[in-house]
Amino acid sequence: MTEVSVLMPKLYWEDFQLGAVAVYGPRLVTREEIVAFAAEFDPQPMHLDEAAASATMLGGLAASGWHICCLLMRMLTDGFVLNSSSMGAPGVEEVRWLKPLRPGTRIRVRSTVLETRASKSRPDMGLVKMLHEMLDEADTVLATLTSTAMMGRKPGARP
Amino acid sequence: MTEVSVLMPKLYWEDFQLGAVAVYGPRLVTREEIVAFAAEFDPQPMHLDEAAASATMLGGLAASGWHICCLLMRMLTDGFVLNSSSMGAPGVEEVRWLKPLRPGTRIRVRSTVLETRASKSRPDMGLVKMLHEMLDEADTVLATLTSTAMMGRKPGARP
Repeated sequence: MTEVSVLMPKLYWEDFQLGAVAVYGPRLVTREEIVAFAAEFDPQPMHLDEAAASATMLGGLAASGWHICCLLMRMLTDGFVLNSSSMGAPGVEEVRWLKPLRPGTRIRVRSTVLETRASKSRPDMGLVKMLHEMLDEADTVLATLTSTAMMGRKPGARP
Repeated sequence: MTEVSVLMPKLYWEDFQLGAVAVYGPRLVTREEIVAFAAEFDPQPMHLDEAAASATMLGGLAASGWHICCLLMRMLTDGFVLNSSSMGAPGVEEVRWLKPLRPGTRIRVRSTVLETRASKSRPDMGLVKMLHEMLDEADTVLATLTSTAMMGRKPGARP
């Protein structure tokens, strides 16, 4: 028997089925990366310093909401985007920061396909609206992000 | 005459007037930071490599949309958040990435107060909904972000 390497087939718009759920990660979030991100992009005391953070609504050091979005994006990129015909996204429908992301949390992302539709203007493209939820170890939802991706259609399957 | 240092008074909810506009920046965005951000959070070829990017919808190397959000947040943080009674934000209403952000662009952010309202549950807090637009040197809007901030109310002005 010959051993062959089996690659996951590249994902096209047709492969995103309504209601499909996928989970990506885990990834351990460290204090060091929380503070480094905040120092560069969101230098508010609640993201930089334990003592200052304890006096805020966060009740202790927690990641910037933008850091949450960026970690989520990285996990999606590794999880499926780089193996897809993704053409990017025109924006983000909504972000909700529900619970603080603390140092030492092991996060995952759960992605659910909310809607798929063909593009009216581009026969080589379809749209996939997804809900991405950041989870902690106890499956508590820390944040949600809703966004619509532009996906290339499968060659040969185009109208 | 004695020289005194005049500090900008700290901003409270009452200081955000409906329709008020402020501009922050400029900041020069370099190729190095675009690639470094993408390598960490959004390693898609269109944000990492000129040749690969030229074949995409972006038509050339451009910053990750999340990098745009993070740069915008940093400019807001320096521009007014650190000098305000900001208590954070529950999320983001909408992000739209309208035009590519190219290396070498000198960006600014224009912030407009869309709505202000007192909090029903917390007398020490008010809400300020703002539209933040990232502009290039020609005042082209590259991206928009709509978000509602929680702001502390002025001591003595609370109901």
